Amino acid sequence: MSLLSQEVPIELGERSYRIVIGGGLLGDSLTYGALPRANAALIVSNTTVAPLYSSTLKTALAGRYSRILEVHLPDGEEHKNWQSLQLIFDVLLEHGCDRKTVLFALGGGVVGDMTGFAAASYMRGVPFVQVPTTLLSQVDSSVGGKTGINHPLGKNMIGAFYQPLQVICDLDVLATLPAREFSAGLAEVIKYGPIADMDFFDWLERFMDDLLIHDGGALAHAVRRSCEIKAAVVGQDERESGLRAILNFGHTFGHAVEAGMGYGVWLHGEGVSVGMVMAAEMSCRLGLVDSVFVKRLVALIRRAGLPIRAPILDSADNAGRYLQLMRGDKKSEAGEIRFVVINRPGEAVVMSAPDALVREVIDTCCQ
Amino acid sequence: MSLLSQEVPIELGERSYRIVIGGGLLGDSLTYGALPRANAALIVSNTTVAPLYSSTLKTALAGRYSRILEVHLPDGEEHKNWQSLQLIFDVLLEHGCDRKTVLFALGGGVVGDMTGFAAASYMRGVPFVQVPTTLLSQVDSSVGGKTGINHPLGKNMIGAFYQPLQVICDLDVLATLPAREFSAGLAEVIKYGPIADMDFFDWLERFMDDLLIHDGGALAHAVRRSCEIKAAVVGQDERESGLRAILNFGHTFGHAVEAGMGYGVWLHGEGVSVGMVMAAEMSCRLGLVDSVFVKRLVALIRRAGLPIRAPILDSADNAGRYLQLMRGDKKSEAGEIRFVVINRPGEAVVMSAPDALVREVIDTCCQ
Repeated sequence: MSLLSQEVPIELGERSYRIVIGGGLLGDSLTYGALPRANAALIVSNTTVAPLYSSTLKTALAGRYSRILEVHLPDGEEHKNWQSLQLIFDVLLEHGCDRKTVLFALGGGVVGDMTGFAAASYMRGVPFVQVPTTLLSQVDSSVGGKTGINHPLGKNMIGAFYQPLQVICDLDVLATLPAREFSAGLAEVIKYGPIADMDFFDWLERFMDDLLIHDGGALAHAVRRSCEIKAAVVGQDERESGLRAILNFGHTFGHAVEAGMGYGVWLHGEGVSVGMVMAAEMSCRLGLVDSVFVKRLVALIRRAGLPIRAPILDSADNAGRYLQLMRGDKKSEAGEIRFVVINRPGEAVVMSAPDALVREVIDTCCQ
Repeated sequence: MSLLSQEVPIELGERSYRIVIGGGLLGDSLTYGALPRANAALIVSNTTVAPLYSSTLKTALAGRYSRILEVHLPDGEEHKNWQSLQLIFDVLLEHGCDRKTVLFALGGGVVGDMTGFAAASYMRGVPFVQVPTTLLSQVDSSVGGKTGINHPLGKNMIGAFYQPLQVICDLDVLATLPAREFSAGLAEVIKYGPIADMDFFDWLERFMDDLLIHDGGALAHAVRRSCEIKAAVVGQDERESGLRAILNFGHTFGHAVEAGMGYGVWLHGEGVSVGMVMAAEMSCRLGLVDSVFVKRLVALIRRAGLPIRAPILDSADNAGRYLQLMRGDKKSEAGEIRFVVINRPGEAVVMSAPDALVREVIDTCCQ
């Protein structure tokens, strides 16, 4: 393993694991030295990532597993469904894979979510390892144990909470990530500042330019600190009953943007970006933060190459359309929309808000 | 709740629950008094059981949930698949059911397994209640948390360990159970004697006739003691890593009979019955138990209306066919067949056995 790699321990009792962060990890057989022995491993990837990294991973694992199987799923959120999941089960069963078989998720969030759910469900649970290849999945999917697939009537509606054995964040693979997707990942990195750690926010203001040129040291710090903050939050609320909801800062408005524009038009991180701007605006109007804070957040988001203006979803009744979409979200309860607002910089709370205020925020941010 | 009902507490930390056993439970609203409040409940049943009991359950739940939805799955093991599972998700999503929705599994093992897996997976986990309507599901599926569906290449290959909020074993519903299915359930009841409790075995010898005429007191004791023994075993091994395997007494040979005859020709309990005879014969040949014990077991199984002779699966190489089927079982590891043998009456161990011995057992029991 690279001497420069860093580790984030995720403490979850008997389901504890480590996130390893650094350069050159994916192709180094030492990276996998602590994994349990098994007869077989299955690398799950997609048709975009597999040609870039699958053979490297396979070679690194070759000394450890006598049989290494592969399955390449079609790429894209629209394939995060039962049909793709079934491809994983088919390979496992056609090759008689037993309960010790280790699954490797090589790809972004979609591959990670599907592989995790397949691992949770195959023979009621087999071990799996995350090898996230996007910035978003490195800072977001590495912690939390959320796995699942979409249903025609809703995203991530079918799944499991299931923890990996290990997460390997190889920073070198980010070099092949399109700039737009890299920026989208930065949205989730920026998020951790306002909700939990303004020192990290200060750091991001100082080192945003280094991140944008993929400086290894800056990337390692950003990924590590994001994972640490998420781990601290999730560690207090593994099953998402309360506190964990603060991780959804920017997501209530953001999901409305994603859904309203049609999924895939705006990237998730882009929706979160304008969602954070809107949630900060709401916090300001509630008197919780001042306009200086809002301007700092907006400036940082813009520097990351992300949108700061919310789109018009309906020219006749734009705010009404936003409200309608937010009421239909999975996280709303009995039609009441839950917003994550900044209580003070570095601290978030979840609350509802009167429609009139929400409309003001939407009108301001969509101008 | 009926004053005569009994309870078996299942201690699993924060996932602990109670099995309630008695007559007249299903239609009594007090039975459900400890369940959490929610806006909606979904009764999952099948086309055979629903016409008998669904409206009774619905009426009993009416004061508790403002919306009570229903879905009736096609009946039979061949429908224990993704398509049926999807019917449950479709209803939940079409009606906008949130994370507090309570699922009720009203039926036998197939309905329980599918409803449990749907509950485990919908929004990554919603509460569910088991209302088993067969003797087999009352004594077997009530404890252990195994849920899942079949894959075209294997039974129960996709699923989760997931615990119910409560299990309600209404003994009155067994009156509508066909005699052959009632006997098949008795196979799993009898199983608990040789592996864990010879006092219970003695009791079964005394009261088998009462069980066969559905005497309420006898049924309550048989169901309660079966659940207690299973709970004691599972409590030490929730995730099936070792000890729990003794619950598979009779299942290694039994699964070969089921598969070899074509699924559905022999009921699961019938396969287990001859499987227990074969495993007892093996234990005797290993010098662990004497022939008196084997004869007692065979006699009790016969009295329960169950088969004691194993079928010929292949007239050319019968033992070879059994061995082939057992090597392909989910519980075999790297092709080594694991047998549950009786170490001494009331105590079981898991071990492998030389093929020559296995062939002798098959030849003896198939004569």
